[in-house]
Amino acid sequence: MPKKGMLIVLSGPSGAGKGTLCNLLLQRRPELALSVSVTTRPPRPGEVHGVNYFFTDRENFEQMIRKGEFLEWARVYNNYYGTPRKFVEEQLEAGKDVILEIDIQGAKQVKENCPDAVFIFILPPDIEELKNRIKKRGSETEESFNLRIKSAEEELKAITNYDYAVVNDDLKAAVEKLESIIIAERCRVLRNMDLIQFKAPGGD
Amino acid sequence: MPKKGMLIVLSGPSGAGKGTLCNLLLQRRPELALSVSVTTRPPRPGEVHGVNYFFTDRENFEQMIRKGEFLEWARVYNNYYGTPRKFVEEQLEAGKDVILEIDIQGAKQVKENCPDAVFIFILPPDIEELKNRIKKRGSETEESFNLRIKSAEEELKAITNYDYAVVNDDLKAAVEKLESIIIAERCRVLRNMDLIQFKAPGGD
Repeated sequence: MPKKGMLIVLSGPSGAGKGTLCNLLLQRRPELALSVSVTTRPPRPGEVHGVNYFFTDRENFEQMIRKGEFLEWARVYNNYYGTPRKFVEEQLEAGKDVILEIDIQGAKQVKENCPDAVFIFILPPDIEELKNRIKKRGSETEESFNLRIKSAEEELKAITNYDYAVVNDDLKAAVEKLESIIIAERCRVLRNMDLIQFKAPGGD
Repeated sequence: MPKKGMLIVLSGPSGAGKGTLCNLLLQRRPELALSVSVTTRPPRPGEVHGVNYFFTDRENFEQMIRKGEFLEWARVYNNYYGTPRKFVEEQLEAGKDVILEIDIQGAKQVKENCPDAVFIFILPPDIEELKNRIKKRGSETEESFNLRIKSAEEELKAITNYDYAVVNDDLKAAVEKLESIIIAERCRVLRNMDLIQFKAPGGD
């Protein structure tokens, strides 16, 4: 039986660049499994069903909630986002480390369900930079933009529930930090109690 | 005022290769400060006073204990080993991360005095390999050899008080793990609470 994988939660305020970081991390660490979320929000240009998200309608999503099929789910603005529980658990049991790239509401639920997961908070260099990044995305009305900023400021307080904080002021450096965190977490004593079972002498 | 440095404790059973790993780590990370221990044991061939250890006599060492000048000290076999408290504290206050390469008795005292230090346990690939490495060192009588092996087996139980376990079965891989642990620990939320103090908007 392989050693169980780790669940690694990448989260942080909207516009911190966690999606970009996550993609770069997966390129450099192809052994990681990415959890694909289910969402009711419409696809953005270029997004592919089953790769970026599983896109579904509200009725189906709410049925999945009732059936307990999510490891976490959240309603953000007017859309639902959720992580299918079964996929994640299968990967972990198979010994794969799984990356969840989710919003802060979702991460809070994962923290309750999986306290031994690794929680990484991605921060934009500063709040002004955060505003710029959200502006550039260009898909926001003025009202939803202001709602996002207020929400982002509120969300920063959540950082105390995370293990690590990575500032996304330099993509390369930030990805290297994520890699280091994963390598380090694989060395955690709590994940390696088998190590002190030394081989018995003899046999050669 | 610079951000305070981290204290990183490298420990593990005799013959696990922690000294070699520590030297390689310092070559790759010259920003780290190495704490030099005081000892009453005689120098081995090639060891330099002030570089490998500060060599001193028992009388002087016991006086330093009485004056509280050690962050930790231990008597191992018939010799004393100790870490001068002042040097470590000065480096940390100056913002430098300090490496302590010490035995398990010493690490236990540091754990009591500095619970926020990072504790890394270095493991030999297996107990047979450990025996071989101690034999190759060639400076042991049969009695002290057997004492060391028994002590090493006993010491493995201490691993539960450590944060990380690194198996020294491949020097390059092991040093990279140590580097990753240091980078990851620098990202710990508890060491970065200043990050959520975002700059106030305006001024540009």
